[in-house]
Amino acid sequence: MTEPPHDPQALAQACAEAMFQDDHASQALGVTLERIAPGAARVSMVVTANMVNGHGLCHGGYIFTLADCAFAYACNSYNERTVAREGAITFLRPAHLGERLIAEAGERVRAGRSGIYDVRVMRQDGGVIAEFRGHSRQIGQRFFPAEPRSG
Amino acid sequence: MTEPPHDPQALAQACAEAMFQDDHASQALGVTLERIAPGAARVSMVVTANMVNGHGLCHGGYIFTLADCAFAYACNSYNERTVAREGAITFLRPAHLGERLIAEAGERVRAGRSGIYDVRVMRQDGGVIAEFRGHSRQIGQRFFPAEPRSG
Amino acid sequence: MTEPPHDPQALAQACAEAMFQDDHASQALGVTLERIAPGAARVSMVVTANMVNGHGLCHGGYIFTLADCAFAYACNSYNERTVAREGAITFLRPAHLGERLIAEAGERVRAGRSGIYDVRVMRQDGGVIAEFRGHSRQIGQRFFPAEPRSG
Amino acid sequence: MTEPPHDPQALAQACAEAMFQDDHASQALGVTLERIAPGAARVSMVVTANMVNGHGLCHGGYIFTLADCAFAYACNSYNERTVAREGAITFLRPAHLGERLIAEAGERVRAGRSGIYDVRVMRQDGGVIAEFRGHSRQIGQRFFPAEPRSG
Repeated sequence: MTEPPHDPQALAQACAEAMFQDDHASQALGVTLERIAPGAARVSMVVTANMVNGHGLCHGGYIFTLADCAFAYACNSYNERTVAREGAITFLRPAHLGERLIAEAGERVRAGRSGIYDVRVMRQDGGVIAEFRGHSRQIGQRFFPAEPRSG
Repeated sequence: MTEPPHDPQALAQACAEAMFQDDHASQALGVTLERIAPGAARVSMVVTANMVNGHGLCHGGYIFTLADCAFAYACNSYNERTVAREGAITFLRPAHLGERLIAEAGERVRAGRSGIYDVRVMRQDGGVIAEFRGHSRQIGQRFFPAEPRSG
Repeated sequence: MTEPPHDPQALAQACAEAMFQDDHASQALGVTLERIAPGAARVSMVVTANMVNGHGLCHGGYIFTLADCAFAYACNSYNERTVAREGAITFLRPAHLGERLIAEAGERVRAGRSGIYDVRVMRQDGGVIAEFRGHSRQIGQRFFPAEPRSG
Repeated sequence: MTEPPHDPQALAQACAEAMFQDDHASQALGVTLERIAPGAARVSMVVTANMVNGHGLCHGGYIFTLADCAFAYACNSYNERTVAREGAITFLRPAHLGERLIAEAGERVRAGRSGIYDVRVMRQDGGVIAEFRGHSRQIGQRFFPAEPRSG
């Protein structure tokens, strides 16, 4: 229905908005989209009581989930619906209850329908919590019609 | 305070119970411990509305989280507190709202303080949703005192 | 030209023989095919002077290469030409000059054209040197014509 | 015996030279050290007949080996002997007989004794053959005495 923006940056933002509307999981976790660009995304989330164990340390699954969100928004920024095929995460430092975690995704390479994206999960002071590498695959669908309507 | 069980199976169950008590994250997700054994664990979870996107598909982060739970209970079954150093997951098929997912973890190898565990995430009909490999590391603490009290 | 064997085990062996004939790299390394079965393979290799550093320890690249060989023969055992898309290896113990290393590959899962195979690299006494996980993809070609000639 | 250079760049080069002298495996493969810097390395190698299959395509094991070399020189550039704990490679395009392959390693993160390094393997025209991620661990030994001799 809507014509896709011609500008890559505007297109990336439009894809992210379209995706976030349907992304109940990220909304329920309180994930904020902080920055979107072609092949890149920055998201953040506060560690809540439901995400921690008895010692107040964030469950690794939620650290992965935040990284996976950043990955998803980065690889879906080209008006090509793209899914995660794999993700690998290395946990470097613990995250604590109440901390805001930031995940910053960048594109390593694209080849055909596949891509590799690297995500760093950090505390607000820049301390690295985890490093994530995701493999993506385009599924042949678009957020917006490929051929913009003329006139 | 409590003497650890001598039997490896009873010890594995005691470790799992001690861990689950503090594991608010798994409790909040509705994770059920279905089976615990030395180096092995089976857990399950129902995909809820908060875990899905607009198409009713489970967010990959929750599939990872369930696999990570199975991994955690499997590698903490020897009365040695053990943390996840890394996890890598391959997504094979989507999971849907309302499905019960099962994650079954087994030990691949232990060497020194490190271990490798493989987890399969399945639907109840056995269809494979994802395959996960986790790397663990013992941190030098125990759930129960190592030397049982005499008398 | 040749009709493919009907028996899965015979087919696996025929595929391995066809593949090994062209596999100059494995031949040059002195790799021996010890066992082939559908989805499984066992290969071995002696660590030579050209594979080691100054301390007589085998370069990790050759340990990966041996694991990758076992993976390749295992995933090519169904008369479907299959390539490695990824491989991940964890090094657990060093291997030394003169040791015969054994790599044993088994199938973890197949889904569509993709597969996951796990390989253990061992010394002859069974000590684990490394654990490898490979991701494969069928490329839509066969070793032998799919439809056997009648008569 | 020898005093280590104070300058990080000179130290990185001195470590690389000390390491390469003993690295029979890399020498036998014809690996060239093209550039060394703190946390970074660039190496290259020509694909020879012994590295290929019958179709003239380079065995994935040799592509991994070249990436692993770049990784090793990058992570050993701080006068701390460091070993590979893991390596994961994604194969994106084939490499052919006679091509010179270049592997460029950079540091992603260091935390305590552990590090993560990313390596891109390219053709000379910059086409990406593979992406590699390596995990390293310092073993508590040095190439040069830590405390330089006074006077």
